[in-house]
Amino acid sequence: MGHLRFPCTQCEVLLEQAPALGACPGCGAPLDLAYRGPTPSAGVAELPGLWRYWDSLPLHDPRHIVSLGEGRTPCVPLERLGRSLGLGALFAKLEYLNPTGSFKDRGAAVLVSALKELGVSEVVEDSSGNAGASLAAYCARAGIRATIFAPKGTPPQKSRQIQLYGAEVRLVPGGRQAAADAAREHCQRQSAYYASHNLSPFFLQGMKSFAFELAEQFPGALPEHILFPVGNGSLFLGTWKGLGELQRAGRLEALPRLHCVQARACMPIVAAFQGQPWSPPRAVRTVAGGIAVVQPPRQHQVLEALSASGGAAAAVEEERILWWQRALAREEGVFCEPTSAAAFAGLETLVQKGVVAPGARVLVPVTGFGLKDRIPIP
Amino acid sequence: MGHLRFPCTQCEVLLEQAPALGACPGCGAPLDLAYRGPTPSAGVAELPGLWRYWDSLPLHDPRHIVSLGEGRTPCVPLERLGRSLGLGALFAKLEYLNPTGSFKDRGAAVLVSALKELGVSEVVEDSSGNAGASLAAYCARAGIRATIFAPKGTPPQKSRQIQLYGAEVRLVPGGRQAAADAAREHCQRQSAYYASHNLSPFFLQGMKSFAFELAEQFPGALPEHILFPVGNGSLFLGTWKGLGELQRAGRLEALPRLHCVQARACMPIVAAFQGQPWSPPRAVRTVAGGIAVVQPPRQHQVLEALSASGGAAAAVEEERILWWQRALAREEGVFCEPTSAAAFAGLETLVQKGVVAPGARVLVPVTGFGLKDRIPIP
Repeated sequence: MGHLRFPCTQCEVLLEQAPALGACPGCGAPLDLAYRGPTPSAGVAELPGLWRYWDSLPLHDPRHIVSLGEGRTPCVPLERLGRSLGLGALFAKLEYLNPTGSFKDRGAAVLVSALKELGVSEVVEDSSGNAGASLAAYCARAGIRATIFAPKGTPPQKSRQIQLYGAEVRLVPGGRQAAADAAREHCQRQSAYYASHNLSPFFLQGMKSFAFELAEQFPGALPEHILFPVGNGSLFLGTWKGLGELQRAGRLEALPRLHCVQARACMPIVAAFQGQPWSPPRAVRTVAGGIAVVQPPRQHQVLEALSASGGAAAAVEEERILWWQRALAREEGVFCEPTSAAAFAGLETLVQKGVVAPGARVLVPVTGFGLKDRIPIP
Repeated sequence: MGHLRFPCTQCEVLLEQAPALGACPGCGAPLDLAYRGPTPSAGVAELPGLWRYWDSLPLHDPRHIVSLGEGRTPCVPLERLGRSLGLGALFAKLEYLNPTGSFKDRGAAVLVSALKELGVSEVVEDSSGNAGASLAAYCARAGIRATIFAPKGTPPQKSRQIQLYGAEVRLVPGGRQAAADAAREHCQRQSAYYASHNLSPFFLQGMKSFAFELAEQFPGALPEHILFPVGNGSLFLGTWKGLGELQRAGRLEALPRLHCVQARACMPIVAAFQGQPWSPPRAVRTVAGGIAVVQPPRQHQVLEALSASGGAAAAVEEERILWWQRALAREEGVFCEPTSAAAFAGLETLVQKGVVAPGARVLVPVTGFGLKDRIPIP
């Protein structure tokens, strides 16, 4: 991968190779990925799913592609709910229709393909569910052995899905952070490759395709607002990156405003953006398990992108998350996990605050399938 | 809908209107759907999902389309499993990446759109899970009230998914047939519209899109064999119909052979095709709940299509179904429900019998997401 470089997102370190432990060896911050020159086009006429954006992806040889057909998710109008919020249009991009049931597949496909190109045969990851399932599935396909560290409270259907893909699951007492610490320690001890979706710059590269698809699905003008449920912010950041590439290529006139939504029970980014103090509770309790991240390693990047795009940040209550999960299913036929519904609860908040004006065009990614979590009793 | 006609699939009855009770009022057999002339093209440049095949779908006005972006499912090679079976190529078309997690969405989208065009405001259906969830989701979107009769043993996550879409679920003591009987009786009593996915000719019309997509995904030549898990056979029959339309339009040279796979515990079609006696056990016990249909109303049509396409029928053991479910996840990263895995177990059988020759190109639809059923403990 001679044409790739890995600059630290916080200090001046610049690496020529993807480090096995993921983070910057100097300051511990996540790395970014930069191209030394344009990625050579392989001249492959028809690549599956998001791989049609080959020229913007950090791979050398299309034979290393590990694909389950990720990407190309449908975008559907939510007419009834959009009207009830006074919007001009509300769209849902059904990211849960990715191969393992969540948006993480965009990142995992690119990360695992890069690992295959690097010749890695065994990886370690930590996850509360969706990212672990996604990494496990792509590793299964690539013939890479995967060990996933997960918090003890992970819903059994999520850990079973990971195991069924052939990955080893190690349940760690304590919360999400304890699982991450255990994974990193294990990697240091065993010299294993830490394929952290939170740290890997390859993972973020896969998320760019969300923006590229939007540009195709809205050939005139993108929606003015996009709201994301944000834990680590990989989809948020990947979209921002992708939009930037589109703009530099002259393919976008106006950029949408990207907003960040978190559960009130776990709102480090919202608090930091609004300049409020916030310290994590002893145990984070929220139905939005996918965004219950206490210390997002890329928080500073999310804050920068929020400011740069003119976005806002909203924290939402548990009751509103569950209300929106039901409303999406009952009014529009879209069945998502609570984490995804949180973004719609945030939309309600931003409409009330006037950040999203009446008549605006809005898009929300539906990040995870409702079947992935405990299904509420209707 | 003046240009549509509904001929009985078994007797000489020919109706001008879709009957509220679904079946032929003369003999009780399912109906087919015929066009009196070509369906007028609405000149809609870009319709979502399977609606791009507008000219082959039985609707008058695109404003009646009820869509969640169904169709356009990815087709992925299963290199490792294909090699292990000695095949030239094995492809999986990931039908579980439809909006409610199963292939039924192709049929439900067209059925519910037709109901909207007919002005129906309330429907009744019976289902063991996937079809009920699919109908409930599209009815939610269309603003049509739905009542689903399901057997008491339906997995709770399936009945909860249906309820979350706002449909009423009525659990009926007894098996799958008891639920169907209860639904039909309810419709007769209440003069309600029986939107049975097994009887409705509109449902089958939606399934044709599976064949149309194959023709696009394999522009040279289709795979030689397609294996289906068959309960009522809607995907099997819809594919056969779609292939016929493609051939008549001069868009296909050779037709693939369509094969039918059932669980040994419930094999009415396999037995009939092989001329063996079979009577249903008192209680059908199989992990492949989606194909546990004792009396498929379109059995005679499936048998005709099997013969016409040069297909075979195979009955498979429970142990092989579960083995293939694991192998698909572990070797290829594809996590399906046991019903879908049954078709792969059938492929193994047909390879052993020499029906599918070494080096052949084979395709199997992966009909339902693994998350929809109880997840086996790995």
